[in-house]
Amino acid sequence: MSFHPSLFIETKRDGGEHAGSEILEMVTHFQNGSFTDYQMSAWLMAVFLRGMSSAETTALTIAMMNSGKQAKRSKDGPPRIDKHSTGGVGDKISIPLAPLVASCGVVVPMIAGRGLGHTGGTVDKLESIKGYNTRLTLRRFEQVLRKVGTAIIGQTADIAPVDRRTYALRDVTGTVASEPLIIASILSKKLAEGLDGLVLDVKVGRGAFMQDAGAGRSLAKGLCSVAASIGTPTVARLTDMSAPLGRTIGNALEIGESVAILKGEGPQDTSELTLLLAEDMLLLGGIEKTRKAARRLLLDKIHSGEALARFSKMVEAQGGDPRFIDDPRLLPRARTRAVVCAPRSGTVHEIDPLTLAYLALDLGAGRKRAEDKIDPRVGIELHVSRAEQVQKGQPLLTLHMQGNRSDAAEKALGAFSIRKGPTKTPPLSLGLVKKLPAQ
Amino acid sequence: MSFHPSLFIETKRDGGEHAGSEILEMVTHFQNGSFTDYQMSAWLMAVFLRGMSSAETTALTIAMMNSGKQAKRSKDGPPRIDKHSTGGVGDKISIPLAPLVASCGVVVPMIAGRGLGHTGGTVDKLESIKGYNTRLTLRRFEQVLRKVGTAIIGQTADIAPVDRRTYALRDVTGTVASEPLIIASILSKKLAEGLDGLVLDVKVGRGAFMQDAGAGRSLAKGLCSVAASIGTPTVARLTDMSAPLGRTIGNALEIGESVAILKGEGPQDTSELTLLLAEDMLLLGGIEKTRKAARRLLLDKIHSGEALARFSKMVEAQGGDPRFIDDPRLLPRARTRAVVCAPRSGTVHEIDPLTLAYLALDLGAGRKRAEDKIDPRVGIELHVSRAEQVQKGQPLLTLHMQGNRSDAAEKALGAFSIRKGPTKTPPLSLGLVKKLPAQ
Repeated sequence: MSFHPSLFIETKRDGGEHAGSEILEMVTHFQNGSFTDYQMSAWLMAVFLRGMSSAETTALTIAMMNSGKQAKRSKDGPPRIDKHSTGGVGDKISIPLAPLVASCGVVVPMIAGRGLGHTGGTVDKLESIKGYNTRLTLRRFEQVLRKVGTAIIGQTADIAPVDRRTYALRDVTGTVASEPLIIASILSKKLAEGLDGLVLDVKVGRGAFMQDAGAGRSLAKGLCSVAASIGTPTVARLTDMSAPLGRTIGNALEIGESVAILKGEGPQDTSELTLLLAEDMLLLGGIEKTRKAARRLLLDKIHSGEALARFSKMVEAQGGDPRFIDDPRLLPRARTRAVVCAPRSGTVHEIDPLTLAYLALDLGAGRKRAEDKIDPRVGIELHVSRAEQVQKGQPLLTLHMQGNRSDAAEKALGAFSIRKGPTKTPPLSLGLVKKLPAQ
Repeated sequence: MSFHPSLFIETKRDGGEHAGSEILEMVTHFQNGSFTDYQMSAWLMAVFLRGMSSAETTALTIAMMNSGKQAKRSKDGPPRIDKHSTGGVGDKISIPLAPLVASCGVVVPMIAGRGLGHTGGTVDKLESIKGYNTRLTLRRFEQVLRKVGTAIIGQTADIAPVDRRTYALRDVTGTVASEPLIIASILSKKLAEGLDGLVLDVKVGRGAFMQDAGAGRSLAKGLCSVAASIGTPTVARLTDMSAPLGRTIGNALEIGESVAILKGEGPQDTSELTLLLAEDMLLLGGIEKTRKAARRLLLDKIHSGEALARFSKMVEAQGGDPRFIDDPRLLPRARTRAVVCAPRSGTVHEIDPLTLAYLALDLGAGRKRAEDKIDPRVGIELHVSRAEQVQKGQPLLTLHMQGNRSDAAEKALGAFSIRKGPTKTPPLSLGLVKKLPAQ
């Protein structure tokens, strides 16, 4: 049967369900230009408002994945496991996680993203490292994987190109925050890596794209069920994003914190989240049978220095100069530092991640428009965490800036809620969703 | 405030209401290219699914009307009144109506459409007349109006250009059948004619775009209230489209029937509908105070030959050769005629307008694709009407064809339901909605 663009759009407009073959045809026609950008946009809005079934989302994921190249999944060899985060503030976990897990015998083929909206991007952060090349070809990517066990690169033009074009349309047509479209976009890229398993960090809270736990849990379930139906065992962990993760926001600053985590000297929350997600990956890859054994192996790799050595090896294999690992002053550093102190004594009840994220963006740590250039040097270094007691005049954070930003300190203070009395902080991990493919 | 395309789309996506100024800004940005086709398509789908308030529809109508040129409304002079039909099968009413009403002292500046979907177009029908030019400039259009009192032309590039582009997008993105979008599209073109009043023929039934009376009544009310809020007194008449109008479907054939109506020799239904709508126009223009007086004046103009003379004058002023009026054989005529006879005796319960419309389209009377050329000669000539008694073997219709179409007779018969017993036909006019601007 021939494909009728208007009829296809009308089916979804009227709340109908597409056959998988129709979705595949649509993606093919979109790729060859006979389903146009404006038709795609009308359909995306219909999907946003009408939703898609799990079967439709699966079909869209597969069709977008097949629109580009895919890495080969090794039949024997070590397990290939990756992690993806839906994005938060101060979320640098991928950077210590990949070499740590690789040092335990898992191959981690990570194709990561750039900053999006108020959130930072793993690729932008790694580019703070002098010489680090995030634009490897798929062939070179596999070479580094064979040699180091992990590599972190940016999305290439040949991975899920239909997702790239669709994402660009969604970004400017008000159709980003649709669960089925988010699922298909994430999985079409990630499953193209040829994985034996995928761990998802679904962030929930003011600093995340999903503000409430219900929406987060629904997205986590959807991601797991679609990935499993395509044959990839998947675990999704819901985690708290109601305060910044760790003590740094900004590209070079976050590389510094990543090194600290790999040395066993990181902040409590980022270190613990790195270990939790690493455990998930080791269990999914069958490296260890129990969480306790996985934790023991991971701590051993950190304390022995093997995890850090693996990170150094990855940096070098991707063209970077790893000397900053021993001498953090080799990382790009901002000219001006301003310490912001507590205006009163009390308990830190809240540190609003969005306020700090937009401040970091203003300082130059992120992009306001697609064509903006990121300044790796600037950002925010926190000296206190939520629920801590502070004394009036005690340093809360240091602003790393270029030039004079007279309003930055006041903006930063606006993120803090300090008052007397005890406070309750949510747990780091809010739940786990697991789905294995049917045998 | 600056205009943010995504935020604008998200407002409608989430069921919000746009300020009139926002809609105006959007249309301006669409015209200068900074609100793109794919953003417009996403917004159109959001409007389709979320609807628009009367205020929003009014703002869109005004903005689209102001995107192009507008004819000047005379302050003194005779009233300028036009009629628009939402489209039906065999609906040639505009052609006798315009000169008939003009002969009574109303200026009828009619910018008409081409065939759309299964329905024929006034402009296509008029182009059956040798030499008739439907592409006058707005300047020449006004000259003919001053000289003849009426002119019928096609939509020009300078009338509501944003509606033209938007309509083209709606046509291929499944967003045609949206009441607020239909209202804004019709009125942005019609009100650009500089009218003192507008009569709308809202068709309801299987041969119309609105299948049920409820949707038709809602559209009629919406059209009247938006037109009145822009300052144009408007009357909408709901009329039956459950059978073909009159006795002809096809371009030159319908010109022939139009002449018959102007001579007082037309079929009962088309003659009566022409008179009803003409009465509406005379009353709206203040030419007569009562329906009875209006009818008397109209019949007088028909019987005296003035209405037909006005038609002849219009044809001539637009470059056409009017001799076909006295000698119908000068109209384009198809080579083959096939008479289809009743297979049994009984009452004609139904004549399905859609079946006959698609058959006429197949014969070449309409376009299947935008680039198709219309054959003015072909079509269907009915010899019976609904509710008539027929004898087995009695001619039901004549097919006017080029070449051999062996399946046409069978298809034509499929439109007829002939069986014993009485039948009930709906009235021609199903109601009237009237709205005058607030003083």
